[in-house]
Amino acid sequence: MSLSIGVDVGGTKIAAGVVDEEGNVLEALRRSSPAKERAAIIDMIVAVTAELAARHKTASVGIGAAGFVSSDRSTIAHGTNLDWTGLNLGQAVSGRVDLPVVVENDANAFGWAEARFGAARGKKNALIVAIGTGVGGALVVDGRLVRGAAGFAAEVGHITSVPGGRPCGCGRRGCLERYASGTALGVNGWELAQFRPAYAARIIELSGGDSSHIKGEAITAAAREGDPAALQCYDDLAGHLGRGLADLCAVLDPEVIVIAGGLAEAGDILLAPTREVFHTEITARRARPEIPVVLAEGGQYAGLVGAADLARQV
Amino acid sequence: MSLSIGVDVGGTKIAAGVVDEEGNVLEALRRSSPAKERAAIIDMIVAVTAELAARHKTASVGIGAAGFVSSDRSTIAHGTNLDWTGLNLGQAVSGRVDLPVVVENDANAFGWAEARFGAARGKKNALIVAIGTGVGGALVVDGRLVRGAAGFAAEVGHITSVPGGRPCGCGRRGCLERYASGTALGVNGWELAQFRPAYAARIIELSGGDSSHIKGEAITAAAREGDPAALQCYDDLAGHLGRGLADLCAVLDPEVIVIAGGLAEAGDILLAPTREVFHTEITARRARPEIPVVLAEGGQYAGLVGAADLARQV
Amino acid sequence: MSLSIGVDVGGTKIAAGVVDEEGNVLEALRRSSPAKERAAIIDMIVAVTAELAARHKTASVGIGAAGFVSSDRSTIAHGTNLDWTGLNLGQAVSGRVDLPVVVENDANAFGWAEARFGAARGKKNALIVAIGTGVGGALVVDGRLVRGAAGFAAEVGHITSVPGGRPCGCGRRGCLERYASGTALGVNGWELAQFRPAYAARIIELSGGDSSHIKGEAITAAAREGDPAALQCYDDLAGHLGRGLADLCAVLDPEVIVIAGGLAEAGDILLAPTREVFHTEITARRARPEIPVVLAEGGQYAGLVGAADLARQV
Amino acid sequence: MSLSIGVDVGGTKIAAGVVDEEGNVLEALRRSSPAKERAAIIDMIVAVTAELAARHKTASVGIGAAGFVSSDRSTIAHGTNLDWTGLNLGQAVSGRVDLPVVVENDANAFGWAEARFGAARGKKNALIVAIGTGVGGALVVDGRLVRGAAGFAAEVGHITSVPGGRPCGCGRRGCLERYASGTALGVNGWELAQFRPAYAARIIELSGGDSSHIKGEAITAAAREGDPAALQCYDDLAGHLGRGLADLCAVLDPEVIVIAGGLAEAGDILLAPTREVFHTEITARRARPEIPVVLAEGGQYAGLVGAADLARQV
Repeated sequence: MSLSIGVDVGGTKIAAGVVDEEGNVLEALRRSSPAKERAAIIDMIVAVTAELAARHKTASVGIGAAGFVSSDRSTIAHGTNLDWTGLNLGQAVSGRVDLPVVVENDANAFGWAEARFGAARGKKNALIVAIGTGVGGALVVDGRLVRGAAGFAAEVGHITSVPGGRPCGCGRRGCLERYASGTALGVNGWELAQFRPAYAARIIELSGGDSSHIKGEAITAAAREGDPAALQCYDDLAGHLGRGLADLCAVLDPEVIVIAGGLAEAGDILLAPTREVFHTEITARRARPEIPVVLAEGGQYAGLVGAADLARQV
Repeated sequence: MSLSIGVDVGGTKIAAGVVDEEGNVLEALRRSSPAKERAAIIDMIVAVTAELAARHKTASVGIGAAGFVSSDRSTIAHGTNLDWTGLNLGQAVSGRVDLPVVVENDANAFGWAEARFGAARGKKNALIVAIGTGVGGALVVDGRLVRGAAGFAAEVGHITSVPGGRPCGCGRRGCLERYASGTALGVNGWELAQFRPAYAARIIELSGGDSSHIKGEAITAAAREGDPAALQCYDDLAGHLGRGLADLCAVLDPEVIVIAGGLAEAGDILLAPTREVFHTEITARRARPEIPVVLAEGGQYAGLVGAADLARQV
Repeated sequence: MSLSIGVDVGGTKIAAGVVDEEGNVLEALRRSSPAKERAAIIDMIVAVTAELAARHKTASVGIGAAGFVSSDRSTIAHGTNLDWTGLNLGQAVSGRVDLPVVVENDANAFGWAEARFGAARGKKNALIVAIGTGVGGALVVDGRLVRGAAGFAAEVGHITSVPGGRPCGCGRRGCLERYASGTALGVNGWELAQFRPAYAARIIELSGGDSSHIKGEAITAAAREGDPAALQCYDDLAGHLGRGLADLCAVLDPEVIVIAGGLAEAGDILLAPTREVFHTEITARRARPEIPVVLAEGGQYAGLVGAADLARQV
Repeated sequence: MSLSIGVDVGGTKIAAGVVDEEGNVLEALRRSSPAKERAAIIDMIVAVTAELAARHKTASVGIGAAGFVSSDRSTIAHGTNLDWTGLNLGQAVSGRVDLPVVVENDANAFGWAEARFGAARGKKNALIVAIGTGVGGALVVDGRLVRGAAGFAAEVGHITSVPGGRPCGCGRRGCLERYASGTALGVNGWELAQFRPAYAARIIELSGGDSSHIKGEAITAAAREGDPAALQCYDDLAGHLGRGLADLCAVLDPEVIVIAGGLAEAGDILLAPTREVFHTEITARRARPEIPVVLAEGGQYAGLVGAADLARQV
């Protein structure tokens, strides 16, 4: 049975692991990564890979990286957090570990794990949406990951939610990410705290009493208690998210939508209003099968599991 | 060299032809089709197929049909113009012509011809958008047609353009189709004719003088003369279309966008403002390769050519 | 007791009457007015005025005219239906009837009758909104009619309802009039008839079966029967109207809002959803007295009654 | 020549002065006001009034107060910053200073000074808009201040700018104040600092380097240097402000619009884009006289000058 090494390279830490064909993690390592320089990052990737390869008979290496990855599945076309635009990362690592190396976008790697071994397992068409600081995603069509012509596909957080709306780091205005991310949740709470402080009293209290520093966790905690202002923060977000998911399904028609990322921890507080809007908004809703919206199952190693598994797909 | 028969079944006529592997049409037939009943339509499909099969040695039949087609590539999951929801059309025809039959959505068949032999030939990732009465499309990802889990993919006319906007036949509000189709162009002209008749004078004149019956052709003709009101009708439409294309590219990242359908005949009157908005709106525009927006090349037989070619793909 | 003559000059007819201080019409005349030329219109105004003055001892003449009237209350600053921009109408008539003449905007004249003798009688602050082909209005503040610096006040149909929305004859986009007039009701019905014909079946039927010619009366008749599509046409309109009234009240804070014009005949079909939105949308709703929204009481002579009464105010 | 005392009661200080009929301040006093209790505030108003009345022969007292003032021009119908809802402030003061006392909304008092002695002097119809933390205003129609039926008129910051937009303290959503105030300017800067930090670098730098605490002053300073991000913050605000002013002019048709408040200090950075949008958006712009948009002239004592002058108007 073939083993593969997966490496998940984040802005502040690296996780690596040995993964079997059923998605089981046989051994995993974690390293905090203060370095932002290319050479140091490559060194660290090589080090964890070599360490694992010494103890396990592995056939391939998959790296999940923050950034857009070229269609060669090796070069970073455009880095986002790390300064490695243009780097042929696959080649740089492969030469030193003597194994074939595949590089994939980290959200794609994570989503692939969900599609293969998680909440979308057994489905050939799935949409995975990760809601954290931003909104990312992965698309699986006919059992294959959609990367796009230049590695820029599945940027589901950058479809329009509000024409002419909030400015986005991507250069557009009104992107879904600006209304349906953890950051957006905090903005919703901040607005209520500024302009309707009595209504937002519980959110402010749970944020430590400072109405100019509203914490997403405070909103979630208040929503769990049933606080109307906190629930409104989630409902506003879910209105945008549900409509955005309906837009994506008009294009992709998946069998299932998997919601992942930090905000997924809110569970039904997020999912119930999102499902309601989604099922109202989906095009041709009376003619088509219902598309379930479910929570991700993947744990802390989903990113490296997906990268390892993608390294097996040629 | 393998030949395939393509059949394009529209609401009012049927076209069929024999197609070689390079997309050439060796012989074509056209029949007007007054019948809307299942049996009569099947009879007519069988008749034209048998006629062509008698004169050419063919290996397969592809039918392009208006409606959502199930993943079996044979059953009409939901008919739109014709009353054949639930019909296993492939089986019904195959048993009588003694050839393998594949059924595909007609917009998909058309788009596939464009991807294989037309403006997107040689590209593995393409987005084809057909702008006529409505807005339809086809997606090609990694060289394969995207049909979706239940045959409902590529409904690109039913992503949101205006939240809470014009009601759409699909059950949603504010769909792109309601703002960027030939019908929408007419609505734009009608609004100007009603509320700014002096400004819209040339459009009204070319529509035969009746300000309550504005014709799309009149708007296009006036726009060709440089009439400001007519150009505004196109610019308004292009604003929605350009933004919608940018949304689709955030999801799909194609190498090329092909604009087809009746409105494509307006050429640069449509394309110039659409490209301008699209290139401004596309996410991460400074980091990614430019995506060209071009006109379709396929002629009158593109629908049957695509259907014939898809019949060869298993 | 002082009598005054009121003249209401419309696009197709002239009505004139003798009005006492309590708003009673002692005698009224009506003339159809095919003429659009200045001289002919003036002749006709002089004729009806002279005829009434010959039979009643009157002290003044008030003319309600379609157009913006200068602050001299005599000159047509800008005509709308009739070609009399720049005409000093008051002077032209006064010289020939030997009575003081005052000219007022026709919507202002109508609204003043409502404020003095109709649904807003006894109130010093009132907003009258007339919903017909367009949306017009009159403002009464501290018991006085608000005309504006140049006669352009109370254009309540031309506040924004939808930023960047439907083009308006006034040069703006998204004016309230484009979403909350009788014309807009017809557009709402037309959209449903085009894009959701099954849903709009009853509206189409009552329009004579032609889905491209939807009549406002058909929508109202269907709404009276409880037809959901027709009620949606009204609800959509009421959403814009209710919000617009709330915007106007934020500026003016009247004691009462009077709804007049042809669409007012729909009664509660219009008023119930309008009130609901209005009371939700009004700023500071918990701190302020409730502002009732009521139907106009003035009958067919309201326009001339108001003009006659305004002629007494110096 | 008649003298009047004006008192301007803010949340943190009281200013009082003796004002002649031409708006000159003969003597002024300022007191910081830590007290929020009714009795203490009344004591302080009485103290400054008595002190001035002892040195000047005065005929009346005008108090400008934060809150909605009833039509009796004496009772606080609804307090905003201070807890004095329901207090008959005029009576409470009048009994102790032995002079007639009139209470007016503070924005109305300020605006009245501008209309009588400032940028709108000599005009009978004026709109004064004060842009500070929020957006307030005053309306002068036919030479008279518009207070509304219950003292709630001229709430120009609470007309809709964005349907369904940012929540407002007044209970609505999308109020002009949420998009065109000093607070909104800070939100605009904060959004750019969060999502486009490179673009907003100069704003962040001038805010002391902390991208989560963007200061309005920093945006204004950067805009003065020509920084594109800071100018965008102002342009976005001006887009809303210009359209809002056009909406107000459709209702009121003033001769002049006066921009006051803290943000007015930005001068042409605010005014130039606001004028451009306003002149494009105003209804019937080709038919009507142009309405100039100018800066307020009133200095630090405008609030008390207006209150003093209103005390003379019966």
